[in-house]
Amino acid sequence: MTKKQHSKVRVMMLGGLNEIGKNLAVIEYEEDIVIIDCGIAFPDEDMLGVDLVIPDFTYLEKNADRVRGILVTHGHEDHIGSIPYLLKVCNVPVYATCLTLGILESKLAEHRLLGTAKLVTVKAGDIVRLGCFRAEFIRANHSIADACMIALRTPEGVILHTGDFKLDVSPIGGEMMDLTRIGEYGKEGVLLLMCESTNVEKPGFTPSERLVGASLDHIFLTNPERRVIIATFSSNVHRVQQIINSSVRFGRKIAVTGRSMMNVVGAAVRLGYMDVPDGALIDIADIGRYPQEKITIVTTGSQGEPMSALYRMAFSDHSQVELTPRDLVVLSSHAIPGNEKLVSRIINELYKKGVSVYHDEAVVHVSGHACQEELKLIHALTKPKFFMPIHGEYHHLMQHKELAEYMGMDPRNIFVMDIGQVLEVDSESAKRNGTVPSGRMLVDGFGVGDVGSVVLRDRKHLAQDGLIVVVATVDLEEATIVSGPDLISRGFVYVRESEELMDDVRELVRGVLADMLDSGVTEWTQMKTGVKDALSKYLYQKTKRKPMILPVIMNV
Amino acid sequence: MTKKQHSKVRVMMLGGLNEIGKNLAVIEYEEDIVIIDCGIAFPDEDMLGVDLVIPDFTYLEKNADRVRGILVTHGHEDHIGSIPYLLKVCNVPVYATCLTLGILESKLAEHRLLGTAKLVTVKAGDIVRLGCFRAEFIRANHSIADACMIALRTPEGVILHTGDFKLDVSPIGGEMMDLTRIGEYGKEGVLLLMCESTNVEKPGFTPSERLVGASLDHIFLTNPERRVIIATFSSNVHRVQQIINSSVRFGRKIAVTGRSMMNVVGAAVRLGYMDVPDGALIDIADIGRYPQEKITIVTTGSQGEPMSALYRMAFSDHSQVELTPRDLVVLSSHAIPGNEKLVSRIINELYKKGVSVYHDEAVVHVSGHACQEELKLIHALTKPKFFMPIHGEYHHLMQHKELAEYMGMDPRNIFVMDIGQVLEVDSESAKRNGTVPSGRMLVDGFGVGDVGSVVLRDRKHLAQDGLIVVVATVDLEEATIVSGPDLISRGFVYVRESEELMDDVRELVRGVLADMLDSGVTEWTQMKTGVKDALSKYLYQKTKRKPMILPVIMNV
Repeated sequence: MTKKQHSKVRVMMLGGLNEIGKNLAVIEYEEDIVIIDCGIAFPDEDMLGVDLVIPDFTYLEKNADRVRGILVTHGHEDHIGSIPYLLKVCNVPVYATCLTLGILESKLAEHRLLGTAKLVTVKAGDIVRLGCFRAEFIRANHSIADACMIALRTPEGVILHTGDFKLDVSPIGGEMMDLTRIGEYGKEGVLLLMCESTNVEKPGFTPSERLVGASLDHIFLTNPERRVIIATFSSNVHRVQQIINSSVRFGRKIAVTGRSMMNVVGAAVRLGYMDVPDGALIDIADIGRYPQEKITIVTTGSQGEPMSALYRMAFSDHSQVELTPRDLVVLSSHAIPGNEKLVSRIINELYKKGVSVYHDEAVVHVSGHACQEELKLIHALTKPKFFMPIHGEYHHLMQHKELAEYMGMDPRNIFVMDIGQVLEVDSESAKRNGTVPSGRMLVDGFGVGDVGSVVLRDRKHLAQDGLIVVVATVDLEEATIVSGPDLISRGFVYVRESEELMDDVRELVRGVLADMLDSGVTEWTQMKTGVKDALSKYLYQKTKRKPMILPVIMNV
Repeated sequence: MTKKQHSKVRVMMLGGLNEIGKNLAVIEYEEDIVIIDCGIAFPDEDMLGVDLVIPDFTYLEKNADRVRGILVTHGHEDHIGSIPYLLKVCNVPVYATCLTLGILESKLAEHRLLGTAKLVTVKAGDIVRLGCFRAEFIRANHSIADACMIALRTPEGVILHTGDFKLDVSPIGGEMMDLTRIGEYGKEGVLLLMCESTNVEKPGFTPSERLVGASLDHIFLTNPERRVIIATFSSNVHRVQQIINSSVRFGRKIAVTGRSMMNVVGAAVRLGYMDVPDGALIDIADIGRYPQEKITIVTTGSQGEPMSALYRMAFSDHSQVELTPRDLVVLSSHAIPGNEKLVSRIINELYKKGVSVYHDEAVVHVSGHACQEELKLIHALTKPKFFMPIHGEYHHLMQHKELAEYMGMDPRNIFVMDIGQVLEVDSESAKRNGTVPSGRMLVDGFGVGDVGSVVLRDRKHLAQDGLIVVVATVDLEEATIVSGPDLISRGFVYVRESEELMDDVRELVRGVLADMLDSGVTEWTQMKTGVKDALSKYLYQKTKRKPMILPVIMNV
């Protein structure tokens, strides 16, 4: 296909607009498509039994031959989690920094894709050529090491995709976000800015990760007689680095527990993302060999996750760590909305053990996302011609639009989009133009997409009021009930204490069936509906519940 | 029964310790029992289908003849919600202030108890005699009008139960908490302080309700061209009063929508708890008759509750209010943990309508509970001999214990208890002594207590992976399958797209049944278990899901 007169860049998000998670940007020009990030979302409470949510890949599957590669900004689940699912339908090269690939690899291994995936390691400052596009990875700061923005040079101009970021002028291990490079692109001219919106409702600047280090020092200083257990996100390598630094400063050995924490620390040390003095790290099995006040334990479980290492400690189920009133547990994290009760439960258990707990997140945690002043800085440096706020619910995107207007943008150049909507851009103009298929696929066990609205509706019904199976055998010719009705009830009432009700139900069904047989009903559907309706009505009157009713009626 | 040599006061909580909600205190001396508050708790996420949680009343039921009455501190659900259930087993007089009884009455009407309940209206300063006890109601401030503390004079000394409170030196309608009276009891000597712990982790003072009034004024001042819709808790009469005051100041008419909001405003005006200038309140049906910028609408739905008035407005389903970009919606509330996503959903919908949304809770909301400095004040004024922190999870109670120690109490005089545990107190000493039955009863529809761990376990199982009913008829004598196996599946997979899997399952079951019949199995249990196990294993291998399997196998 030769270049048409009016070729334009087409930009669309298949996830990450009007939702939190499953971030996926698609940018195409003529025969070339590049993807930026490919993450999962966590299921809503009403998606019963669903493990995770991935984007609808229909559009990418149909255009698989045009996809030149996936550029990954950083290694969080909402940016890499769907890559294994995408590679199964479209096995294109994946470009990411070293730590990001390290985390992705263990994910690909679980899906048995490590042998076939094409992984390309890049570092900040590298430029990758993908069809007509050239992508530069630009250093960003975030709550995971080795995060980047992507500057994508297209035939019509530069698109800057921020990934997730904050500005940290005093970062731990690694460098400050490359403001200079961002500014250079700004001077050259940025056609389209795609900027994350997570903290757009928060004024000011996000504090430096280094703040947490000072708090940790203070905790160690004021608790010289205690063993200290610190829970945080395993992917926050810099946080763990600071825990190690503080511990070493106070003469403590560090032990690590929790599967993902051990994996990440192992990978980070191996790949050179963590600086650990010789002998500082000890095996969790060896903590008994040292004075307990000279031990720091770094653990998973900061979200209260059942079966995490901290959870097992709290419920006396951890094989190496037994908590005592001499211990101090620090939650160096923020409870993600929805997890507050889980976290609260662990804190209660810790208190019951007499353990001291420190969980003031204003002191021992900082966010990884840019607040308003940092977002303004990016707008000021890039002065984009067009702007698309990304990574947020509708209210985040709208407030980001307001922020851009405050920074002087013409509202007509700001595009608050929905997933699947296409923005067509050329060097002079941008406009919405049509949609591509988009949505969400639910993953439940091995199944992708086989749980949909019907299955979820049934699960919800069953969850609310349980079910009753009504079994009866009839003789249609004789118009008599041969056996039953028998009842199987699950999740409805405690049957042993509801015998009277169940007897009444049997009697009712027997009557309904007999009436129908008497009046010559021979249609199965009619018979089942008759039983269902009568029973449903009766039970609602008696119990104000509506269990699912499954009639099994057989002819002899 | 004559007074024994060593009679003691026995104090126990049947709810409200190590949990949020279902507050219920029991205080007894010889033949007399009094109850303070009797509330509900909301179900945890794992209590599928449960409507609400009430305390276990076994102890009160057994001792019904000794119960002299229920003293109620204020009209929130977690303090009055279980009264109808308790009155059904133990119909004793209920003593409460006017507004509290007003709210309770509509609850009793739903339970058809209004005819039999014995309701006694009291006001702050009143003293009620109950057997050997004398209870004084003391004015408190809280996020509902007409809240009181209870000073219970027992033969061994005074017990001060704070209910829920804050100190508001500039309250709206009503008076400041009666610090003087509390101080007088303190000077006389308080034997036992039972003090709420909700905000014990928050430093400083809770701001005055009046702060919200100033913010509302500012909102009206800066939005003269907009209709303003304000959502808040219907029980917060003072908040609604301030909305009315500000509206009137800016020449606006006020309309009310939402069933509970209309009920409460109606009751509050009728009972004299609200001061509304003539003509200021208009019917929601009449809002079209006025310039829209001269209208304020007060609505329910501040927690994002589905089907609340605000929800219906947001989703264009409200019969009287249609939102437009000229409207401003103010959420004058705090999202209760667990409701954040519901609130977020409504905000997104409002933004999609182009409606402006104001939801900075630091500005347009204040808590109703005492922070650390207010709690310290109560400790300082009462200087109790003994202290029992109440109304909180374990971590709240423990931090309240620390606060009491900071205020100079001997830790041995502080009792962090659990529900059902008995504290025996006399004028000189206090000690734990045994327990009474306690726990939680789950209410689902009309059923109280018929949903327990077995039913919940089944509901959870069904919610996660659905179910499969396997129906087959066999001829045991001939050792053959006569009909089936047929499958009914709900909430497991989308059957229309899983025909192959279902065919495989039928084949598998047929094989298992045939094998068992061949090898002479005639036991139903064995046959069902055989089918269940084989099918369960197969499905887990294929789908990584574990649906509930219900085999229905009949002999011909």
